[in-house]
Amino acid sequence: MVLINGIEQTSIDYRDRGLQYGDGLFETILINNGTPVYLEKHLNRLFLGCQRLAIAPPDHQKLRDEIRSVSSLTQNAVQKIIVTRGVGGRGYLPSDDSNTTRIISTHPLPECPGDLFTRGISVRICQTRLGQNPFLAGIKHLNRLEQVLARAEWGDSDIKEGLLLDTSNNVVEGTMSNLFCVKDGQLYTPIIDQCGVEGIMRSVVMDLVCRHNIEVECVQLTLDDVARSDELFLTNSIIGIWPVTQLENQSFAIGSVTREIKRWIDQEKF
Amino acid sequence: MVLINGIEQTSIDYRDRGLQYGDGLFETILINNGTPVYLEKHLNRLFLGCQRLAIAPPDHQKLRDEIRSVSSLTQNAVQKIIVTRGVGGRGYLPSDDSNTTRIISTHPLPECPGDLFTRGISVRICQTRLGQNPFLAGIKHLNRLEQVLARAEWGDSDIKEGLLLDTSNNVVEGTMSNLFCVKDGQLYTPIIDQCGVEGIMRSVVMDLVCRHNIEVECVQLTLDDVARSDELFLTNSIIGIWPVTQLENQSFAIGSVTREIKRWIDQEKF
Repeated sequence: MVLINGIEQTSIDYRDRGLQYGDGLFETILINNGTPVYLEKHLNRLFLGCQRLAIAPPDHQKLRDEIRSVSSLTQNAVQKIIVTRGVGGRGYLPSDDSNTTRIISTHPLPECPGDLFTRGISVRICQTRLGQNPFLAGIKHLNRLEQVLARAEWGDSDIKEGLLLDTSNNVVEGTMSNLFCVKDGQLYTPIIDQCGVEGIMRSVVMDLVCRHNIEVECVQLTLDDVARSDELFLTNSIIGIWPVTQLENQSFAIGSVTREIKRWIDQEKF
Repeated sequence: MVLINGIEQTSIDYRDRGLQYGDGLFETILINNGTPVYLEKHLNRLFLGCQRLAIAPPDHQKLRDEIRSVSSLTQNAVQKIIVTRGVGGRGYLPSDDSNTTRIISTHPLPECPGDLFTRGISVRICQTRLGQNPFLAGIKHLNRLEQVLARAEWGDSDIKEGLLLDTSNNVVEGTMSNLFCVKDGQLYTPIIDQCGVEGIMRSVVMDLVCRHNIEVECVQLTLDDVARSDELFLTNSIIGIWPVTQLENQSFAIGSVTREIKRWIDQEKF
């Protein structure tokens, strides 16, 4: 089922600024037994994005109700929410009207064999770089060509993810995930202030480890820093946590910190 | 009239990657007496963009025919062509299918009093910066949030354009135009290798001045370089050429080089 502005339909006006300029935001939410997981965290990021782009946010309660009503029709799935500035304005200049478009759709879960946690995954380093723009960093906006280009770099299905560097040679994230490094029992994750997305599972992990008195620092990380890590793992809302056992030619073990965090995530109530 | 994939309609599938990721390209073409101006140059850039993004290009002759048939229904207007990767693929990963979407629409010319050439225009310097990404530089892709944010910085209708710097402090372009500086009889324009769009009118001006033995160099330009110029002007396909007479607090005269180039453009056959 697809709800666009509260109506069951599957097409949008070609003039929508989401299409014309990528002028909008999205969220990708895990539906578990008909319930959207970490819904409030996703909505918080979505509304923060609206604020950052000065898009009139959709009515909070209406959006929440629509999300829950679409979620309840499925058991386990991915739900995608798109919010755009809608139709209007002259060229790039947005209009003052609030014509915000909201699109809620559900999709099958990606094929992710459950043993990827026990086996770990292979990751490559992408050639595509992330341009830096503090105004757009952190939010999940619709300008995703860098991710499309990066993901198109490989076809080998044994490689599950690619790491992206920014134009200053800092490691930022995966094409669809955030990165954590473990070194001497402490966690490090790239700071998301110039580019990249502040993932929901990234913030869940940060909260969890703080509650368990493990230190986590948001820092600038080079490829060398990553290579010197004891453990590496990736996070996103749909997969949860993936240990990295191979990064290009370097192997990593699935360490005790990664295992413990995985256990905490699985026990978490959302 | 709006033609989407050759059919008169105004809505597109919400799954179109143009909306989902800004995964596509566009052109904005001047229609003069029913004829698209510099059509082949626009199509060249569009097809170059398809190549760069590995989007299967629409059939050249079919697209050309559709553009001409829509153009012939109007006298003077703006025509917008959007080409997207269409529906398909898993997440960011594009599919191998060629489902390219093509959208051709016409719009009224913007209100541009003709005396803007004789009076010149006021230009501001935007706070929004352009992220650098050589893979995306030059082509007119659909990831335009930086331009939307930059254009939203001002509401004063006396200010006609804003200049954008990149994250390395180079002046790159206007939100919807390219910049030329004249210094000691020679032309300079920002090099478009890290970000920015290689405008059609920019290339027309470069060809014209070369034919008239005026040197033009594509260089890295700082705001100081711009401030030390004798003449400044902006170009785009719809407005042609706009002399800049005010940049923030600094005034510029409309110089002889700018006037001559304006004359050459007006005489040009397209």
